[in-house]
Amino acid sequence: MTSKSTIMDTNSFSADALDLLDGETRQLVERRLTVLGGAYRLFYQHPVHLVRGEGQYLWDAAGAKYLDMYNNVASVGHANPTVARAVADQMMRINTHTRYAHENIVDYSEQILATMPSEITRAMYMCTGSEANDLAIRVAREYSGGTGIIVSSEAYHGNTDLTSRHSPALGGGQPLDAACRRVRVPSADAMGGPGSLARENSGQAFAHEIEKAIDDLESHGVRFAGFLADSIFSSDGVHPGQAGWLAPAVDVVHRHGGVFIADEVQPGFARTGEAFWGFARHGVVPDVITTGKPMGNGIPVSGLFARDEVLSAFSDRLPYFNTFGGSPVSMAAALAVLHEIQTRDLQQHALQVGERLRTELRRVAERHAGVGEVRGVGLYTGVDIVSPADGQTADGALALAVLEGLRERRLLTSVAGAAGNVLKLRPPLVFDMRDIDRACTTLDETLTALDA
Amino acid sequence: MTSKSTIMDTNSFSADALDLLDGETRQLVERRLTVLGGAYRLFYQHPVHLVRGEGQYLWDAAGAKYLDMYNNVASVGHANPTVARAVADQMMRINTHTRYAHENIVDYSEQILATMPSEITRAMYMCTGSEANDLAIRVAREYSGGTGIIVSSEAYHGNTDLTSRHSPALGGGQPLDAACRRVRVPSADAMGGPGSLARENSGQAFAHEIEKAIDDLESHGVRFAGFLADSIFSSDGVHPGQAGWLAPAVDVVHRHGGVFIADEVQPGFARTGEAFWGFARHGVVPDVITTGKPMGNGIPVSGLFARDEVLSAFSDRLPYFNTFGGSPVSMAAALAVLHEIQTRDLQQHALQVGERLRTELRRVAERHAGVGEVRGVGLYTGVDIVSPADGQTADGALALAVLEGLRERRLLTSVAGAAGNVLKLRPPLVFDMRDIDRACTTLDETLTALDA
Repeated sequence: MTSKSTIMDTNSFSADALDLLDGETRQLVERRLTVLGGAYRLFYQHPVHLVRGEGQYLWDAAGAKYLDMYNNVASVGHANPTVARAVADQMMRINTHTRYAHENIVDYSEQILATMPSEITRAMYMCTGSEANDLAIRVAREYSGGTGIIVSSEAYHGNTDLTSRHSPALGGGQPLDAACRRVRVPSADAMGGPGSLARENSGQAFAHEIEKAIDDLESHGVRFAGFLADSIFSSDGVHPGQAGWLAPAVDVVHRHGGVFIADEVQPGFARTGEAFWGFARHGVVPDVITTGKPMGNGIPVSGLFARDEVLSAFSDRLPYFNTFGGSPVSMAAALAVLHEIQTRDLQQHALQVGERLRTELRRVAERHAGVGEVRGVGLYTGVDIVSPADGQTADGALALAVLEGLRERRLLTSVAGAAGNVLKLRPPLVFDMRDIDRACTTLDETLTALDA
Repeated sequence: MTSKSTIMDTNSFSADALDLLDGETRQLVERRLTVLGGAYRLFYQHPVHLVRGEGQYLWDAAGAKYLDMYNNVASVGHANPTVARAVADQMMRINTHTRYAHENIVDYSEQILATMPSEITRAMYMCTGSEANDLAIRVAREYSGGTGIIVSSEAYHGNTDLTSRHSPALGGGQPLDAACRRVRVPSADAMGGPGSLARENSGQAFAHEIEKAIDDLESHGVRFAGFLADSIFSSDGVHPGQAGWLAPAVDVVHRHGGVFIADEVQPGFARTGEAFWGFARHGVVPDVITTGKPMGNGIPVSGLFARDEVLSAFSDRLPYFNTFGGSPVSMAAALAVLHEIQTRDLQQHALQVGERLRTELRRVAERHAGVGEVRGVGLYTGVDIVSPADGQTADGALALAVLEGLRERRLLTSVAGAAGNVLKLRPPLVFDMRDIDRACTTLDETLTALDA
């Protein structure tokens, strides 16, 4: 299966459908189309104009209430008052940069490093996951002396020039870096049938894929620098696999002198339930950890955490300064988010609610030929949408129809995977047991209406 | 004069001086050194631990009050209540991403595009100036079909891989892009003596430098893509030049099919007083405009604004999505900043206060052999620190001593230029007539104490 060049364009509004919108939304969308760049996309053929949020719920301009199963940025809940208050208080005190001493960046660094393996001792801060991954690739290259970076076949790691060149999910228009190699996540081949990643030796097989990619780099005279992966393999279609599955791959990376960069923008901050960090499920120790989306609950803040000797290879030679990164306000937001996760035990919550959600989703799947595997970990779930005719062929068109149907029934989510056929259910961590019934009923109704 | 490899390291604390710090600051700095990456730098041999801000003033942990003449991020004043309230209110309502419709991004785009030439019709949003310039270079390359980007000889345009390779200010450790060429800002050669940029034909001479760089690119088989410049030439040592001075250079760029990217991270948002945008002083129309630092008064927000056909060359082929960019909260901050600038007429204020400041600074200069040219526009001023022996040789060591002396007297600023000898005075725009006396007295005392 080749990568769709339009994966980033699936589930998006087309201006041709403007006439179908109601007056208020139509006017806003028209104004938007007039002033924004052409790269902007609105979700859905019938875009949502959201004006209010609370916890896992969102309200549109007409007052309709939506269940949010997509937005992992608002991880501790939309309009979280603890985070809002922390940001507001800090804004009224001071917000400068890291060239003056301030306690927030020190307090946060101590607290976040305490959640990481003891080998990870150094913190740096940026504003976006893209900036973190951009720097991580540069660090890996400086440390290893190589340039070759391996990513998964549908990976997305950011929007800068360098990270775009390591993001095959952006499609055929975006050339990959000449020193970038892709490896296929084993179960990306095996649509349908639960437990595909559980099968014996899949971890060894993936490690072998990495070894082959390293050989290929070397046969082109490119020295291996590292392996960059989000351990949930989100844009490959949500393939968290069993705990420990990734360890053989990381061993191979280290044996070949490469750096393992754990991109925690998706699995980090307690989402998997099994651990605070995605990599920790696998008992591996990364050389570099990058963070983003959920770190500040919507305030732009990201981080790079690393082994001292790995980061020093970069910082001994090269300056790096990020004006907004690590500012008192950014760190106040990050401190508040961490406090919320820890005091509300959202990790344990994600584990329990996620398990129960998948159990219930599998009951829905039993009633619909259009639903294949339901997989995931914690509050990160992928649901394969397949052709009802054979119950196994990936069906991106049906998945889009399901998305639109869910949206009309006021459940927000999106799709992932090379074929765009995997429902990506990634709600705020405060998503609750009581939301499961609504989620499953809505999916059931949607599939029934589509004869799927 | 060659670029110092340490320009980004000037005016920074060395851990060797830890013993000289008082208990509280020492403890905080020690904790910081333990957890942050080695690239972090603290300003001053005696770092400042700031805990509160208001307008143009900052207070340290011991309660001492500082006059801020450095921080252009807090452009409408530290702890600005209008911005803080706008952010807090929006955080308590909703903060999602641009794939749902929201009025803030549309309102802001309409308002900010109204301040730009009519040719600029498209807006995109990121979180940092680095992200904006990274995208701008990619846009210029897609539109022109070339890769060659020209920058000024001491330019700084960002911290991503691509922008770092177009930032000679980062020093010798950071390789420049093979397709990057540098042009010298005329007056960077002429230290001392006011009006160096005013001399006849300097605009033509600079245009000729650009033409030579284009020739050099072409002789290496590299097609010209564009010219990326901050029109104040801040890191080259603050060389705004006379209004109109840049026009011949932009003409040359366009004649050769290149894109002019106006990096407004430094001169934008009314700072120059003469216009809302730095490029507008020169009567030129850029193809791409990038913004950053002062746009959100500390909330990470940046933008790229472009001619439709230039941006379309990128967006017709390549997707771009920035998770936090253009979010309701980011746009609420940007809207509040724009509102503050306009309702308080900070542009006119910057013009008047800046003129007066330079007049008074020139009086100080008359009394000190160690001060050469005082130049600038609006609230952006460069003061050449020169050897008192000859009154003209750039003296970076003396400039550093002046900085430390100003800091001990509670005036905060920094240095710029290839030799690190230019005091960069870039206060919040709310810097007032009544602050001028304190600024000049403090500089006078500092120079006297240094026998300069």
